[in-house]
Amino acid sequence: MRAMSMYASVPHLSKMLRNLKEWMSDGAELAKTKDFEPAVLLSARLAPDQYPLLRQIQAVCDAAKFAAARVAGKTPPVHEDTEQTWEQIIARIDGVVQYLDSFTEADFEGAEERVVPLPFLPGKGAKGLVYFNEMAIPNFYFHLNMTYAILRHNGVALGKVAYIGGFELVDL
Amino acid sequence: MRAMSMYASVPHLSKMLRNLKEWMSDGAELAKTKDFEPAVLLSARLAPDQYPLLRQIQAVCDAAKFAAARVAGKTPPVHEDTEQTWEQIIARIDGVVQYLDSFTEADFEGAEERVVPLPFLPGKGAKGLVYFNEMAIPNFYFHLNMTYAILRHNGVALGKVAYIGGFELVDL
Repeated sequence: MRAMSMYASVPHLSKMLRNLKEWMSDGAELAKTKDFEPAVLLSARLAPDQYPLLRQIQAVCDAAKFAAARVAGKTPPVHEDTEQTWEQIIARIDGVVQYLDSFTEADFEGAEERVVPLPFLPGKGAKGLVYFNEMAIPNFYFHLNMTYAILRHNGVALGKVAYIGGFELVDL
Repeated sequence: MRAMSMYASVPHLSKMLRNLKEWMSDGAELAKTKDFEPAVLLSARLAPDQYPLLRQIQAVCDAAKFAAARVAGKTPPVHEDTEQTWEQIIARIDGVVQYLDSFTEADFEGAEERVVPLPFLPGKGAKGLVYFNEMAIPNFYFHLNMTYAILRHNGVALGKVAYIGGFELVDL
C-alpha cells in the first residue's frame, strides 16, 4: 500500500486557509451591511461549551501548523493565542499560510515512519502517516468547518463554492 | 511528488461514518433523557437555507460513496434519498460502510489519472487524484462536520474524542 505524500497535502491546507480568509471578508461585509462590529462574530458559538469563532480560527491555524511541522520533525513557531481583533486573527491566518509555504518536499523525507508524540496522551505517539491522516487532517477539517458553521449560522452567505475553492479542471 | 494511495483513505471514510453512528446514538440518548422523538433532530438546521440533519447525513453518505466509486471508475449504488425515520437513516449509513468495505486495492489501479466528470460543471472533469483531494474529501468532511455541528448545537454532548475515534498508537 503506497503512502500518501504528506508534502502534497500542505498546499491544500494552505488553500483551505485562504478560502477561510474569504469567508471572513464575507463576514466583515455582512457586519458592514447590518451595521455591527465584525468582532462581535468572533465571540459567536454553536454551543455554550464549544469554542467561539476566534478560538476555532486559532485552532484551525494550529492544526495546519502542527500537521506539517510534527510529521516533518520541525519545531513550529509558537502562537500565544493573544489575538483579540479582526485584524489580528487575519494576520494569524496569513502567518500560518506563509509558514506552510516554507515547507519543501525534502522536509518530509522519512516522515511516514517518524513517531509523533501526542501531547494529550503522555507516553504515547503515532507514526507520522497515521498521525497525519487519522488525527491531524480530520482535526484541521473540524475547526475549519466549525468556523464555517458559526459564520453560516450567523447569517454570512457562504456556500459550497466558497468552501471548496478552485481546483484544476480538464475538458471532457 | 508521490500521489497518495486513495485506496488507503477508504477505510478512514468508513471509520468516520462509524463515528457518526455513535454521535447518532448519543443523539437518541439525549432524546430519551429529554423525552422527545429523536426524529425531531433530523429536521434541525444551522441556518434556514442550509440542509437539515437528515439531508446532511444523506450528503455525507453520498460524498463517501462517490469519493471511492468515481476515482475507481465504478457505478455506485443509487440512493433515492427517501429516508424519513431514524432507523432508515442509520441503515443508509450502514449500507455505505458496507459498500466502502467492498473496495480492493486493485480497484484503484490508474485512479490517479482517471478523469472524473463533474456533474455540476457540464463538459468539465478533474483527474482522479485532484478530484479526490480537492473536492471529494473536503466535501465529505464538510457534511460530516455539519452533521456534528447540528447535533452539538442541539445539545448532544459530543467532543473531540467522539469525532476523531481510535487510531494506532505506539509507545514512546
